Amino acid sequence: MREVYLDHGATTPPRPEVIEAMLPYLREEFGNPLSLHRYGEKPRQAIEAAREKVAALLGARANEIYFTASGSEANNMAVKGVALMARTLGKGNHIVISAIEHQSVLYAAETMAKLGFEVTRVPVDRYGLVDPQAVGDALRDDTVLVSIMLANGEIGTIEPIPEIARVVKAKGIPFHTDAVAAAGRIPIDVDKLGVDLLSVAASQFYGPRGAGALYIRRGTRLLPLIDGGIQEGGRRAGLEDVPAIVGMGVAAEIAAAEMERRTAHLLPLRDRLIARLTSEIPHVYLTGHPTQRLPHHVSVTVEYIEGESMLLLLSMQGVAASSGSTCTSRALKASHVLTAIGVDPALAQGSLVFTLGEGNTQEDVDYVMAVLPGIVERLRQMSPLYKPGS
Amino acid sequence: MREVYLDHGATTPPRPEVIEAMLPYLREEFGNPLSLHRYGEKPRQAIEAAREKVAALLGARANEIYFTASGSEANNMAVKGVALMARTLGKGNHIVISAIEHQSVLYAAETMAKLGFEVTRVPVDRYGLVDPQAVGDALRDDTVLVSIMLANGEIGTIEPIPEIARVVKAKGIPFHTDAVAAAGRIPIDVDKLGVDLLSVAASQFYGPRGAGALYIRRGTRLLPLIDGGIQEGGRRAGLEDVPAIVGMGVAAEIAAAEMERRTAHLLPLRDRLIARLTSEIPHVYLTGHPTQRLPHHVSVTVEYIEGESMLLLLSMQGVAASSGSTCTSRALKASHVLTAIGVDPALAQGSLVFTLGEGNTQEDVDYVMAVLPGIVERLRQMSPLYKPGS
Repeated sequence: MREVYLDHGATTPPRPEVIEAMLPYLREEFGNPLSLHRYGEKPRQAIEAAREKVAALLGARANEIYFTASGSEANNMAVKGVALMARTLGKGNHIVISAIEHQSVLYAAETMAKLGFEVTRVPVDRYGLVDPQAVGDALRDDTVLVSIMLANGEIGTIEPIPEIARVVKAKGIPFHTDAVAAAGRIPIDVDKLGVDLLSVAASQFYGPRGAGALYIRRGTRLLPLIDGGIQEGGRRAGLEDVPAIVGMGVAAEIAAAEMERRTAHLLPLRDRLIARLTSEIPHVYLTGHPTQRLPHHVSVTVEYIEGESMLLLLSMQGVAASSGSTCTSRALKASHVLTAIGVDPALAQGSLVFTLGEGNTQEDVDYVMAVLPGIVERLRQMSPLYKPGS
Repeated sequence: MREVYLDHGATTPPRPEVIEAMLPYLREEFGNPLSLHRYGEKPRQAIEAAREKVAALLGARANEIYFTASGSEANNMAVKGVALMARTLGKGNHIVISAIEHQSVLYAAETMAKLGFEVTRVPVDRYGLVDPQAVGDALRDDTVLVSIMLANGEIGTIEPIPEIARVVKAKGIPFHTDAVAAAGRIPIDVDKLGVDLLSVAASQFYGPRGAGALYIRRGTRLLPLIDGGIQEGGRRAGLEDVPAIVGMGVAAEIAAAEMERRTAHLLPLRDRLIARLTSEIPHVYLTGHPTQRLPHHVSVTVEYIEGESMLLLLSMQGVAASSGSTCTSRALKASHVLTAIGVDPALAQGSLVFTLGEGNTQEDVDYVMAVLPGIVERLRQMSPLYKPGS
């Protein structure tokens, strides 16, 4: 049976070069980077070399890159760190996010709400786009943070961050963007975006798990999420995961070098899959923006059936896909993202997300289209909602 | 030149079995454990198997083990999580810690102080021991958390946690212990200790970096440090670092199986090094408790000179050691631990910590004693404080 991995939004297979680069730091170069003796030297240098590479991917300065263990940690560090610092400074209690943020931003903001912050969720249009003017309208004198994602992992939409940033920065408010789904996939330049904080995760661009980073523009004030030692300039304590950091550096370097080639490879596959899905299977509709969209991302709703059943039957045919955000797929709640773009909750259950990777081919896409229509048909026959011929 | 690694308190070399177990999860089994397709299966099972092993090392139930990326993260998760949850419940604003906590507890508590909590630091005696009665005296009606470490990484002293727990739990207050320096080195049973939360780090017992855990007794309430996805029962979001978690499981299993043998190996080495250091070099004094002490831990102050200079000269002779806590050694501040046990700040600069490991031999100890006296003598000759013959 053919094996087709189309879940690169859940995680990507680390590149062999990434793993090879990690191995020495798993084995002989195990030292604590802070150690004054020779065991600390190479790990310390390796971290700084990786920092340069991650900075280069983001158009940032190396001393503005802070390593974390995941994109979720970076998002929590940004949201909670900026909000709680503002509180210690008596600056205000208002946070603005979009209605389609990842759970790690959304629930971080909700935790801040439990601690007395007020959270405004800016709505999106039917494509998942945030209107910069709507963000501007949400800003108040006591707004201490705005967090709007660069691209959504569930529907693939890329937000107009430069335009939003102009509105936010005109008021001098710290602006964070969750770039976890976007980094390594589309060009990112923190200065052109105009953001103060930006989160990334290595596992989204063929790096290892256990490695993320938060870009923090010089002058941005935030409390650490993890207090303690002097690692990461005192902003993120804990023994550094040197192998993971080294792997992230290599993955960032490769992503920067190969982005153009990867995009050229992915776009025709993406567009072919979208076209075939929406034209060859009845009652299948694209979610997210048709063109302002991540190059690897295909998301649809399949009416009358449940995403989970499709995933299981696809998996039995060797196709790995997803139904919305993997971080909550097992929670079986209606997706807040699909709700926000106006998808009927019943239809939102039929969400199906295919995220392409550098290893995928046109044959993979065609294989999906060889097996999926039968699966959909079979499930619809079992569905009490579906009337044949409808 | 002989290479002698005596800095196992900074970090331990991962066991080959640990690395071997990690490799499949770095390579082919890269899937997201939450994925519903087959790529998620083995990673998901591997995490749960590792959880069982870590639980077994601590005498806990597997569903009370929450993986983190470091001991520092576990400590922050405990201190901030319990304190901030208490705040949302309107329960009180008082935290009790000891004067010799690791920076990740100390500064987490200080961050809580910035947010309006009051922090009492219970003093210790000249051996670094916390008096359970002193903890009892510090408790108030509005105390929401007590955090006292199981053993100190800088001076090796093991605290009387069961006695302290009895005092704290008699008042129904959540009790956390930082067991990062102790776990894998001395037997731990969360029930016998009587704690509600307990932090560990794999890098302290021949596991990988990037893996720690927080034990949370059922019924203990805390806010997540990292909000987001449903990983770790919704208590710690972010893509799991499966390779690191798997490695931690193997390391925990080995530590449990070999603890008795390791201790029997370490104790004579520890005691030999302490005896020779304090008898053969003038003006060298043991810090911490002489017997209630971690089996791998040797810490002394060397009068009239600076720890950092000794470390560099030792490193040139192939000996890797430490001067107090590695997490702050580069900060060059007087150690709060040595200050708390009454060491004169000038002497505290001459702190030297040797932490033994399973690979060390009596020859290693004797090699230290072959090179260190000359180094001390040389540095003292250069010291304006030292008068020969004094």
